[in-house]
Amino acid sequence: MPSTSQTTSPAVGGAAKRGRPGYDQQSVLRIAVDVFNRHGYDATSMGILADNLGISKSAIYHHVPSKGDLLKLALDHALGGLESILEQPEAASGAADSRLEFVLRQTVAVLVDRLPFVTLLLRLRGNTEIERDALERRRTFDHKVAVLISAARDEGSLRQDIDPRTVTRLLFGMINSIVEWYKPGGPLSPQRLADDVISMAFDGLHADL
Amino acid sequence: MPSTSQTTSPAVGGAAKRGRPGYDQQSVLRIAVDVFNRHGYDATSMGILADNLGISKSAIYHHVPSKGDLLKLALDHALGGLESILEQPEAASGAADSRLEFVLRQTVAVLVDRLPFVTLLLRLRGNTEIERDALERRRTFDHKVAVLISAARDEGSLRQDIDPRTVTRLLFGMINSIVEWYKPGGPLSPQRLADDVISMAFDGLHADL
Repeated sequence: MPSTSQTTSPAVGGAAKRGRPGYDQQSVLRIAVDVFNRHGYDATSMGILADNLGISKSAIYHHVPSKGDLLKLALDHALGGLESILEQPEAASGAADSRLEFVLRQTVAVLVDRLPFVTLLLRLRGNTEIERDALERRRTFDHKVAVLISAARDEGSLRQDIDPRTVTRLLFGMINSIVEWYKPGGPLSPQRLADDVISMAFDGLHADL
Repeated sequence: MPSTSQTTSPAVGGAAKRGRPGYDQQSVLRIAVDVFNRHGYDATSMGILADNLGISKSAIYHHVPSKGDLLKLALDHALGGLESILEQPEAASGAADSRLEFVLRQTVAVLVDRLPFVTLLLRLRGNTEIERDALERRRTFDHKVAVLISAARDEGSLRQDIDPRTVTRLLFGMINSIVEWYKPGGPLSPQRLADDVISMAFDGLHADL
């Protein structure tokens, strides 16, 4: 199991006992994220959230002060998972292509483990301060992976004929698409999915002849 | 140049002379698609469109009967481009992996050539009949490419150790991401982008040692 899935994010679960019986803050957050993903964050009112939770609007305010706080908690959970990958020792030392493989594998694991949260992150439009802050943290993460790709390239383990910026974009395109189609609990395990992503990204689709 | 970019879609430009001076239907459509992509289709009213076009709502109705018709024209343009790829002779005969390479190259070309239209298509949520019809056409296209991937696999030219459904999803994830980051007119030409996609997808990132 990826260590990231065991990380306790301070963003989620902190005030678990607060609020009405039947829901803790984390359950409210999970349902809210599903509703945001279905209707879009902008189009989701506190009234729509209350309907989906089956509680009153004032009961939601027992859990969080505002819709924006729900968004912030959700995005912290997604970003915290990604950022903690780069703090692992396997991301910090060794050959650049091994570090890159580790980071990409763990990224797949976080995407799958925190699927609705990362989905919300990837669909952001940047309309509010909270969204822009989250996009900035995401860009910082992407940039650190891009640096690793360049390092693996300079080291001679990655092909030199594609601009590293294009490589980074296409790799993230492939990996981020997972949130749009992966079905947790289905026949494709998270471990197998990570293996497939690594095989396809590093060795390509052509059969070894 | 890809032949698809020269295809005259019956959906766009048909009634070019209709409407007020200064705009033909195609210009109205291009601006509308940009507004849909910026604000989301659901959140875009005819009033917002009129503001962006600098004309009155009634002037828009000279060009198209409704917002839904603009959406339909735009999606037809995106889907028509993709569907015409599969009608080319290079997609229909020869070794499956050459046909697949042709189709993927042309898909990149259509994405770049019709960027805002394909962006709109890829962001659809399926909330209306028009959107669901478009998603169905997109699924049909994706399915035909998946059949080609399976054929190339059966032929022995593609690796056998990844489920062809996973390959299809990851390939489209990589290619479709282009609409989110590619800047037309920048240093990366459409032709070079297609080469990079093909190199990365078929041969992977590892340097040949």
